[in-house]
Amino acid sequence: MNHSSQMSTLDERNLSMMMDLYEMTMSNGYYLSGDPDDLATFDVFFRRVPDGGGFAIFAGLEQVIDFIVDMRFDEEDIEYFRSLGKFDDGFLEFLSKYRFRGDVWAFDEGTVIYPNEPILTVTAPLIDAQLVETAVLAQINHQSLIATKTRRIVRAAQGRAVSDFGARRAHNTDAAVYGARAAYIGGAAGSATVLAGQKFGIPVSGTMAHSWVMYHDSEFDAFANYARIYPDDTILLIDTYNVLRSGVPNAIRCAKEVLEPLGRRLKGVRLDSGDLAYLTKEVRRMLDEAGLEDCKIVVSNSLDEYSITSIIEQGGCIDSFGVGERLITARSDPVFGAVYKVAAVRKRGVWEPKIKISETVDKITNPGRKKVHRIYDRTGHAICDLITGENETVDLSGPYAYIDPIRPWKHGVLEGCTSRELLKPVIVDGKRVSPARDLKEIRDYVDSQLRNEIWQEEQRFDNPHIHHMDMSPGYYSFKMALLDRAGNPEGE
Amino acid sequence: MNHSSQMSTLDERNLSMMMDLYEMTMSNGYYLSGDPDDLATFDVFFRRVPDGGGFAIFAGLEQVIDFIVDMRFDEEDIEYFRSLGKFDDGFLEFLSKYRFRGDVWAFDEGTVIYPNEPILTVTAPLIDAQLVETAVLAQINHQSLIATKTRRIVRAAQGRAVSDFGARRAHNTDAAVYGARAAYIGGAAGSATVLAGQKFGIPVSGTMAHSWVMYHDSEFDAFANYARIYPDDTILLIDTYNVLRSGVPNAIRCAKEVLEPLGRRLKGVRLDSGDLAYLTKEVRRMLDEAGLEDCKIVVSNSLDEYSITSIIEQGGCIDSFGVGERLITARSDPVFGAVYKVAAVRKRGVWEPKIKISETVDKITNPGRKKVHRIYDRTGHAICDLITGENETVDLSGPYAYIDPIRPWKHGVLEGCTSRELLKPVIVDGKRVSPARDLKEIRDYVDSQLRNEIWQEEQRFDNPHIHHMDMSPGYYSFKMALLDRAGNPEGE
Repeated sequence: MNHSSQMSTLDERNLSMMMDLYEMTMSNGYYLSGDPDDLATFDVFFRRVPDGGGFAIFAGLEQVIDFIVDMRFDEEDIEYFRSLGKFDDGFLEFLSKYRFRGDVWAFDEGTVIYPNEPILTVTAPLIDAQLVETAVLAQINHQSLIATKTRRIVRAAQGRAVSDFGARRAHNTDAAVYGARAAYIGGAAGSATVLAGQKFGIPVSGTMAHSWVMYHDSEFDAFANYARIYPDDTILLIDTYNVLRSGVPNAIRCAKEVLEPLGRRLKGVRLDSGDLAYLTKEVRRMLDEAGLEDCKIVVSNSLDEYSITSIIEQGGCIDSFGVGERLITARSDPVFGAVYKVAAVRKRGVWEPKIKISETVDKITNPGRKKVHRIYDRTGHAICDLITGENETVDLSGPYAYIDPIRPWKHGVLEGCTSRELLKPVIVDGKRVSPARDLKEIRDYVDSQLRNEIWQEEQRFDNPHIHHMDMSPGYYSFKMALLDRAGNPEGE
Repeated sequence: MNHSSQMSTLDERNLSMMMDLYEMTMSNGYYLSGDPDDLATFDVFFRRVPDGGGFAIFAGLEQVIDFIVDMRFDEEDIEYFRSLGKFDDGFLEFLSKYRFRGDVWAFDEGTVIYPNEPILTVTAPLIDAQLVETAVLAQINHQSLIATKTRRIVRAAQGRAVSDFGARRAHNTDAAVYGARAAYIGGAAGSATVLAGQKFGIPVSGTMAHSWVMYHDSEFDAFANYARIYPDDTILLIDTYNVLRSGVPNAIRCAKEVLEPLGRRLKGVRLDSGDLAYLTKEVRRMLDEAGLEDCKIVVSNSLDEYSITSIIEQGGCIDSFGVGERLITARSDPVFGAVYKVAAVRKRGVWEPKIKISETVDKITNPGRKKVHRIYDRTGHAICDLITGENETVDLSGPYAYIDPIRPWKHGVLEGCTSRELLKPVIVDGKRVSPARDLKEIRDYVDSQLRNEIWQEEQRFDNPHIHHMDMSPGYYSFKMALLDRAGNPEGE
């Protein structure tokens, strides 16, 4: 397998123009009127887990890092900006030599994440922090969406392999390719998308379409021809005409007349239509009666976590699922709503926390520069995440009092717990400081958290347990004091 | 505006690896066992209009053409294929010099399309026809989805401008950029996405985020600073603190104290949260009372065709809508299900029609090589589409008897009608034969069809009229005869 991907996870394409125009109008404004020594810290966080789930999976970080450190504007870009007639010549000159000058901290890619905690922070001059907003969000939103959705499907499959078959229904090429990457992180065994296999070393699979069967003079001819070419890897599509009356008998005949004389076994059959629960039971019975107990059954028709759960409950005999449009578009809930909000601004050398108030209580942001700690009990389960100020330490050697901001009257105490800090530096002064991570390692990290750390109660589909997002007493008081001041409608 | 886009609508990226692996396993099989003179015709068609609509808009053709004529495999690609250990060396050698050798016919981009008619056909050697499948489908599915969705939103806005603000929630970069292109085709006035503006000459807009307001020492300072920098184009975001108590008064003060002395007017205000119907009425009243009747109101919070319809019904005072995630992901129905099905195969020099039968009647394909005619009545309205064999002509100078395949017992007759053929050659022998089309021209073509040709009854959201898909008597008999023969479960 080709792992060249591990060196360059983004295209040669210059994606620096992947921004909303307001990033430029604001940056031009900061250039003309701001103090160049001013800094801002922006937090990326999301507010709601798609599909009513209990957790999400953070994906896309490698591409975010590559994007930010590679960011630059070439002559054509500057010319385009000039053609808009909105921007100062000095600013455009500045942009032509631009490199990102800030710091980025982030959770490890693949970390299980929850609403309202900063999963990535950018601390940089206002211009730098503003110019990366849209590209960072689009990458994290897309890949986290697909990784999270895939994990649901993988869970429903109860140990059976799930592969991404969705490229043709993806929202264009990037959605197919980075979607396959995210699906792999979420637990997919592989993808049918060749470009994703080439780029990221994801295992790829693929056999035949109905057109192969229809091109040949008969279904048996189509199977026999395929088996002679791929005797070690013969998986036959059995639903072009009639699964039980023609597809399975021809597959069995192919196994006996073509593969057995070559000393080979029929590896599998695939169904892409029909009542999969009923048909796969019949197919299994017919294959077994023919002595093909080792022949696998692969299915691939409009699947998602709900249809897979139902097929398995009905006793469908399936070894592996090819999942298409409902995975690659996250069809049931296709938006991951991570946002990019200012948490603090350093003006005239002094950091000022910023809070965005809102009529809706859970839309109020967490102000200031902060840390996120994941707290584990003695069994190694993650019992809550704890937000503290950036300079606080969390000493769990004795009892530790915390505040649940939704029920601040409860006096919660952590005892016998351990913690780890989730935000780590990945870019410092515009340079990457964390090594590129292998995709397989990210995938294993997801799997290990969900097996060992995350409560099953958070992973179920219906009414999952809501992970607690707690605060240190110091951070809670700090936020409340800012909220008090923000009562002033001028926000000053 | 930069229209360099009109020359190269795809990236420099080589997208030839954007395929499902089965395209390669089949192509390798055809290379090893097929007759190189055999040809196939594949049809692209879709079965269901998203969101229960009455029509869709065909988009993405320019990218499809560029993709096909540019298709080639570089050394790295061949190496990757070799690493999979599945493919014949002679075939990989063949691929290393590969160029597409077939013909592509298609509807004009922007044509209003209906289920079950071929909107694009590929006629080529089996290998060539198979290798383009996934890339062609993904491009058409994505852009047609977004163009169709956007048109619904544009219709709901009843003449008010709709702009695409969705990049951050798009399914990655291509989805943002080609999504903005498709949205423009569907009638959006423009996009916030800079890369789409640069690449396709789409008008771009953008002003400020909440972070701009929060960075400044007061909301008024933020407005005043912006107005001084952009006096000709001042649009102020008025919902950072409190729209009515602070945002509007500060905007009015900015108009009076900053812009008027410069001889300028406040161009607009934007709201991104809250009850938009109620707030915009109040904002309008306050602006009017201050003599700012010409100040526009722009809104941009979780909008789609339904929320826009409701806001307008409630009398919301809105001049322009910025629509984000629900447009760029087509959130309510994010899959456009175009498929790629073999219609005919030329073996040993003779064309054989192919039909895919199915338990579900409307999943049965239309076999053979064919034409699609759009039929117009005397008022210029499109009253049906008519499928005929490829060699039939449709003579409408007198009464013309047709068959409605859903009600074949009805004897339908066209009288006083005109027609136009919808499938036109775009690639012949691997060379592009149709000139590249200007994006604005495609957008105007959509608009003109929907204004002049397509019944309003097909355009409404609830229970739209279902466009008739009729057949010539000759084509209908041909299809029925093939279906009869296909009763044989071997399909031979």
